[in-house]
Formats: sequence, C-alpha cells, structure tokens
Amino acid sequence: MNKMKIAVLGAGGLGKACLRVAKEKKGVKIVAICDSRGFLYSERGIDVKDINRLHASNDPIGEIVKLKDKIGGIFVALPNLPNEFIPSVVRRFIKAGYKGVFSDALKRTRAVKLMKRLDAGLKRNKSVYITGCGATPGLLSAAAVLAAQSFIKVLDVNIWWGVGISNWDEYRATIREDIAHLPGYTVSKAKKMTDSQVERLLDKRDGKLELHEMEHADDILLKDVGVVDSLNKVSVGGIMDTRCAKKPVSTTMTLTGITFDGKKSSHRFILGDETSMAANVIGPALGYMKRAVWLKEHSIYGMFGSTEFMPMVVR
Amino acid sequence: MNKMKIAVLGAGGLGKACLRVAKEKKGVKIVAICDSRGFLYSERGIDVKDINRLHASNDPIGEIVKLKDKIGGIFVALPNLPNEFIPSVVRRFIKAGYKGVFSDALKRTRAVKLMKRLDAGLKRNKSVYITGCGATPGLLSAAAVLAAQSFIKVLDVNIWWGVGISNWDEYRATIREDIAHLPGYTVSKAKKMTDSQVERLLDKRDGKLELHEMEHADDILLKDVGVVDSLNKVSVGGIMDTRCAKKPVSTTMTLTGITFDGKKSSHRFILGDETSMAANVIGPALGYMKRAVWLKEHSIYGMFGSTEFMPMVVR
Repeated sequence: MNKMKIAVLGAGGLGKACLRVAKEKKGVKIVAICDSRGFLYSERGIDVKDINRLHASNDPIGEIVKLKDKIGGIFVALPNLPNEFIPSVVRRFIKAGYKGVFSDALKRTRAVKLMKRLDAGLKRNKSVYITGCGATPGLLSAAAVLAAQSFIKVLDVNIWWGVGISNWDEYRATIREDIAHLPGYTVSKAKKMTDSQVERLLDKRDGKLELHEMEHADDILLKDVGVVDSLNKVSVGGIMDTRCAKKPVSTTMTLTGITFDGKKSSHRFILGDETSMAANVIGPALGYMKRAVWLKEHSIYGMFGSTEFMPMVVR
Repeated sequence: MNKMKIAVLGAGGLGKACLRVAKEKKGVKIVAICDSRGFLYSERGIDVKDINRLHASNDPIGEIVKLKDKIGGIFVALPNLPNEFIPSVVRRFIKAGYKGVFSDALKRTRAVKLMKRLDAGLKRNKSVYITGCGATPGLLSAAAVLAAQSFIKVLDVNIWWGVGISNWDEYRATIREDIAHLPGYTVSKAKKMTDSQVERLLDKRDGKLELHEMEHADDILLKDVGVVDSLNKVSVGGIMDTRCAKKPVSTTMTLTGITFDGKKSSHRFILGDETSMAANVIGPALGYMKRAVWLKEHSIYGMFGSTEFMPMVVR
C-alpha cells in the first residue's frame, strides 16, 4: 500500500505533533516541513528530532512549492494572522500546478470565507482542499452534523472547549489566535504582541484565557450544510489554561433542537479530558486529508468544508 | 428544488414515523408505502392518516417494484426476520432495473454481511445503497468514526442504549428484533412468538428488556473502515422499557483509545433523553439517503456502510 506523502506547513506545536502522530501511522509519511525561517525535505520521512536542523531560507514556502510533484498531501498548520495569509500561500501551490490535496486547521469564519474563492483554481488543477479540519471547526462541528440528524429544527449549537497546556510557548501561534478573540484585542494586535507581552497578559489572568462568542468557522460550515439557518445559532467559547496540562473544563459540543414529535432535547459530544488539543486537531486533519484523496480518486475536485464529509480513518 | 420521492417499505412504527418526519421537511416526499398486507401510492405524498387505507395485495412489495420509475429513493423499514429477507426484497428491485437509491435501518451483523453481496447488481443498475443507517448502527457508529480520529489505537467502542416506548405494540417488529438477542432466544424463535407470548415475556420482566452483547452491525461497519481491528472490540447493549416513554438510561456511545502522546481516554456521544428511537433512526436514514443521491450524482455506485460517509442534512 502506498503511504500518503505529506508536507506540513508550520513547524510549531501542531506541526511537531503532526510528525509524532504520523510516526504512529502506516498510511502516512511526512516528507517535508517548513516554518517562517526554514524547511526540510526527506523522502524517507521526517522525525520530530529533525526539526532542529531546518535549512534556512528566505522563502521556505517557495521551497516546498518546488517539491510539488513529490507531495500528495499538504497539511496547513501555519499560524493564520492575518486572515489573508493562508489563501495567499495556497494560491502559490495552485499557480505552480500542484495536483495533490490539502487539509487545514483554520479557525476563523472570515478565514474560511476567503478560502472559498480558491475553488475554481483547485478545480482547474484537479485538486481537493478540505478546510476547517481541526477540533473546532472540524471534529466538533462534524459531531454537530451528526447530532442534527435527530431533529427537524436546530435551535442552537454550543461548543465549549477546555485546553490545558503546561508550557504556552510550544503553542505561541495558537495562543495568539485565542488572544485575538479577547475583548479589546484584534487579529493584528495579537500578531504584533511580543512574547513578553503575551507572558504579562497571561500573568494577569493566572495563566487562563476565558473566551466567549469566538469568531469560529463552525458557524459558516454548519450553515453551509443546512444544520443551522443563521450564523448566530452557533456559539464557540472556552477556557485555556496555559500553566497546567489538565483541562479546566471538558470540551463539549451541545446541539439543541426540536424533534418531529415536538420534543426539545440536546445531543452532546464530549471529548475525553486526557486528549490534548494536538490529538484532537491532528487526527481529524489527517482523516480529512484521506477523505480529500478519496474525493480526488473519484474525480471530485474543489474546495470543501469539513462538515460536508466524515473524515476517514488513517491507520 | 426537486423533492426526493421516496418509497417506504414497512408501515409499522418506523414507517409511520417516517411519514411524520417527511411531512416536516421540504426536501422529501413519501409517495409510496407498503407492509405485508397492502400498499399505497400517491404522487402528491402520503400522510400518516392515509395508512389505514392501504390497498390489500398478495404481493405489496411487487406493487412497489412496479412503481420503480416513479421513485428516487427507498427507505427499507421492514422487520428483518430472517436475515435473508431484506436482501431478497432488494434483489427484486435490482432485477427490475430500479435505478434509484436505498437506505435501511438494519441492525444485525449477519444481515449487513449479506447485503454486501448486492454490490455488483447495484453497480450494474448505477444504483447506491447505504446500509445500517438507523441509530445503532448509524448515528452512533458514525459518532464512533468521528471519535476515533483523536486516537492512534482504539481499544473499544461501547454502545449502551435506552429506549422507552409507552405502547409496545406500535413497535412489534422492533421488540421481536430485541427479544431475538435475549439468552435462550433466536431470530426464528422471536419471529414465531405470538403477541400474547411477547406480552407474557414482558410481564415477567416488568416491561423491561435488558440486552447485552447484542449482535449489532456496528462491529462490522466499524471494522470495515478501520476504527477497530476486530469485531469483539465493539459491544452493543441497552435497556428497553416497553411501558414508559421515558428512557431508562441515556443512550451513549463511548469510544476508548490511546492518543499519540500515550494517554488513554474516552470520547462520548450522548443522545438527549427526550429524543425517541424513531427520531434517532428516521433522521439519519433520510440523511444517508440524501448522501446516497449525492454519490449517485457523482457516478459512485454500489453498496456502502453508514460508517463510510457523514449523513447529509435534509431540510
């Protein structure tokens, strides 16, 4: 059986976790990785310890673009500040004629909206991209599509997550993504913060970030497939503890609706407290990438949302 | 937008509930229904009150087969005792050249195994069949596919359901399906029981059936897609209360696995207690039927399991 040969864009917490997850799976091999400073390619596969010896480059993404014929799948695990950044990266691959598939762990509604414009270019290349394939959106919004099946009307979808990380600087980009959702902060303001400014902000809050009404693309991805009829029926929030690996709350997707026999009720999907954010993001992202390969094999091309398809199991 | 024109095979509890659910959805119309005694066809759509005026027939299935060009989808809600019954019904539609799609709410592992033999005939007709589209298998086994994403190894999948029905004789076939799983009973023994024998059995148990290690096709459907590596890692059981609409326990799918970072943990999908068995079976069955239409539109034909695809949302 051929292994899926994957390039990972981003060598932060998620990128590194992806190398570790792939190591445990026969079906995938990470052959390329890059961050803002350097890149690495190895046909034999990249181990997490190799990450310290990235080749410095002024244009690491450009180096990966050059490898386009050696890669079957790209997992976009780049920090996405600003919203336009990832679409611009993907456009480079499309222009170069890359014919493989993509998945990403994008979060923000506006970012996912921008992705949709790439549909025509992807189709021209006979390529497939599935967006929003992390935990939220991704695993939890897909669970909402399942939960919606029992109801004739969905009243609301609530995603309330808990993340615990013992060492915040492993997930600098993720933390900045979250800070951007705090009252008084914006994407550009969060992006400009230095590490010590982030440190001070966390100090003031005892290491915890509590976020409400986050702009998460679960809303648009669920509206697109008809689970909800308006974006404001989906709410996402949660608590991140940056000083303790234990989750401050159990991550839960709750979908409330009305059944055909007039009953109001809620289905819930609850993630085990011991599962890390990395486990709940990387697994779905690889599962969706396998689904993207399946779509391509069936001559179905273009840009899709993670709520449109069950991810597949990668072993 | 064209409504999906559907025939429902079976006019018992599930068949009737399907008429009521379809009434609430713009995207579907039930145009034909039958049971063992009669059938009904109406281009304008069938209401649940019409069920009392089925046209008597010696071969109601044969009457529906004759309507093959007027039907886009068939929902198989027939009692399936013995295992060979539903495959034999489907074969009649295949032989007649029916080109629409199918979904079913089959339960038993051996029944689903038999369905797989229909693949070639379905492909010849450019038809699509998705099997195991009820609650278990169906909604809950699909939730297990999602839950599996976070783990590199799945240790076990446990489905524990609660069903409460205030009036058992609305669901005579379902109850017999469950009785067949009791120690000392078989499919053929359950099929032969008279209503008063069923009544006596329920009387002895205070109206409750507690079932363990049920032969449910969740096992084979999850093994087929690689969620588990052996059938015995999936267990299904539950409690049916035939005298009270309130569920005796909350229906829960629990998947336990090991993450890439070595943590053992469990994800859970819990159905709201107020949702009836009918809501949790009919919704997914229609959602999967829409997925089957999607597959057909993309020239993908044959027999599929419900764990392979997310159901779609029917509005």
